[in-house]
Amino acid sequence: MDKTPAYAALDAKSPLVPFSVERREPGPSEVLIDILYCGVCHSDIHQARDEWGGSIFPMVPGHEIVGRVAAVGDAVSRYRVGDTVGVGCFVDSCRSCPQCEAGEEQYCDFGMSGTYNSYERDAEHRFDRSRPTYGGYSTRITVDEAYVLRVPDGIPLERAAPLLCAGITTYSPLKHFQVKPGDRVAVVGLGGLGHMAVKIAAAMGAEVTVLSTSESKRADAAALGAHDFAATGDGEVFKSHARRFDMIVDTVSAEHDYNAYLGLLKVDGTMVLLGIPEVPAPVAAGALISKRRRLAGSMIGGIRETQEMLDFCAEHGIAADIELIDIDGINDAYERMLRGDVRYRFVIDIASLRGEG
Amino acid sequence: MDKTPAYAALDAKSPLVPFSVERREPGPSEVLIDILYCGVCHSDIHQARDEWGGSIFPMVPGHEIVGRVAAVGDAVSRYRVGDTVGVGCFVDSCRSCPQCEAGEEQYCDFGMSGTYNSYERDAEHRFDRSRPTYGGYSTRITVDEAYVLRVPDGIPLERAAPLLCAGITTYSPLKHFQVKPGDRVAVVGLGGLGHMAVKIAAAMGAEVTVLSTSESKRADAAALGAHDFAATGDGEVFKSHARRFDMIVDTVSAEHDYNAYLGLLKVDGTMVLLGIPEVPAPVAAGALISKRRRLAGSMIGGIRETQEMLDFCAEHGIAADIELIDIDGINDAYERMLRGDVRYRFVIDIASLRGEG
Repeated sequence: MDKTPAYAALDAKSPLVPFSVERREPGPSEVLIDILYCGVCHSDIHQARDEWGGSIFPMVPGHEIVGRVAAVGDAVSRYRVGDTVGVGCFVDSCRSCPQCEAGEEQYCDFGMSGTYNSYERDAEHRFDRSRPTYGGYSTRITVDEAYVLRVPDGIPLERAAPLLCAGITTYSPLKHFQVKPGDRVAVVGLGGLGHMAVKIAAAMGAEVTVLSTSESKRADAAALGAHDFAATGDGEVFKSHARRFDMIVDTVSAEHDYNAYLGLLKVDGTMVLLGIPEVPAPVAAGALISKRRRLAGSMIGGIRETQEMLDFCAEHGIAADIELIDIDGINDAYERMLRGDVRYRFVIDIASLRGEG
Repeated sequence: MDKTPAYAALDAKSPLVPFSVERREPGPSEVLIDILYCGVCHSDIHQARDEWGGSIFPMVPGHEIVGRVAAVGDAVSRYRVGDTVGVGCFVDSCRSCPQCEAGEEQYCDFGMSGTYNSYERDAEHRFDRSRPTYGGYSTRITVDEAYVLRVPDGIPLERAAPLLCAGITTYSPLKHFQVKPGDRVAVVGLGGLGHMAVKIAAAMGAEVTVLSTSESKRADAAALGAHDFAATGDGEVFKSHARRFDMIVDTVSAEHDYNAYLGLLKVDGTMVLLGIPEVPAPVAAGALISKRRRLAGSMIGGIRETQEMLDFCAEHGIAADIELIDIDGINDAYERMLRGDVRYRFVIDIASLRGEG
């Protein structure tokens, strides 16, 4: 197949530059997708700059992909040419471990094939280390239909893209830890993940409170559907809201005091970590023991649950709030993200990469 | 009523000495109990030495009480004179908060009345700070029947006493976090709590592994019913047993590396903390997020669940392994406990305090 235009990080130190990748013709069970939009996740920066170690260069980031099916293999049954589809954080997994069999491929015992910065699978679904995966900062991608999502009608496509990572990352723990109508849910941090957590938790019927270091987010929180807001700056909230919440969705990657937030949970409350601070944070056993609280973590979601999330969002009129950019704005976008200056997700208009921009 | 012989800590620095306390005649809903045996919990030492702060002196410790009903109030319906009964870690609570209404009085929003080092309640079930509670290092105690347990036939009474704290503290999380037959449960630390966790988890049908710093505990673990044992000293177990367990019951109060143990949990596994190290321990968010693990805490159990635990133990022939001591051996027992030199619980024969020893 012809070379596919892309943007890549050639190493950990350089800005992203124009690049091109090979995309294979779809195999029997595969779908070739013309990419329309790709969201920009904070993890794109971490990986492009090798901040987590082990990065594979050249790297074409992007795992919040929405596009249209351009071709399908002979055995493809779920999708037809012209369908609007999505690809999220992974494009394959071992397909046989307990987690894959349970449809929770994100916890595959052998590791998933990330949509980028990872490797394709061979015929036995083992990693093929000769074939890196390249992500959505490109004009097309070939993916097995089992790892492709259907984007339901009613969600503006550019605003659907971030659902594939930020959406499922917040939907999954809210479902898994069983938020019920009337539950009090606190969302810590109001960025790409946090703004989706507010929308989804509110749509699930929860009473949502945004906790933010910055008083300036109060109006934004209300606009997103939060019922309450509390600035954490002076620490007063840790007294006034003690034992108030059934669940805390903690989206913050910066260092912060877990124990202070644990004190905001009711008996049997759960705090779910979605962000990974650089340094492990001290946890006081007493904060957990005294009220049988739980500190948990959650990572994206499986294919089945991601489809469920997309359908839920369509049904409830939920989409990400985004700023649409052209591909040549990607390096500036990274800088703005590092300053927390985005409401709430950058999305690349891939037409700009195709030369239609 | 006549003075009741007891042993008390008069301050945080002195050994326990003979003492006497007033016990009230039973009110309409109360039971007067002649104490037969009282277990010695590590928390007795912490509180007698004011290591947690706020200790109330003079203090008569003891919250693993087994005895016989000596008198009952007019309105008592559950117990009759001569019944064999138990009293655990608390003797009252607010009776109206959601937790008390759910029968989980240990998480009472207003705080339980500990069996000692706490206060009795007034007619409105508020703390009466003029009346400290005194525990089981004494010959009798008066308790509302709602906070008294029935000790079923078939458990040797001196071996039943530690069930009231060590037994329920391990039974409750195993039940609450839903251990199922065939689940792999690791028990960290083989002391008073750990040895009960092994027995109870095995009786629930779990495959139990003891993790201990000391290879010397291997034979003991097997004798208690554990199916497997691993010494943690050289760290090899953290590789060989990675992702092996559905649940870890962590009974250790000494400083240890939570993250290493979290790595032993399967996807969706739960590590339950029962011990409170002096210093909060660092938790790596990634250890939780990567496998949707949970770090939880649990504290004793409610009255209803404590009764359920006693009945379960009787049914399964479970009792604590103990060393019976006279009351004048209590200070030596404390010293031996601090050296970890007890298998697995000291129990005071209260006959020795009554002058029958």
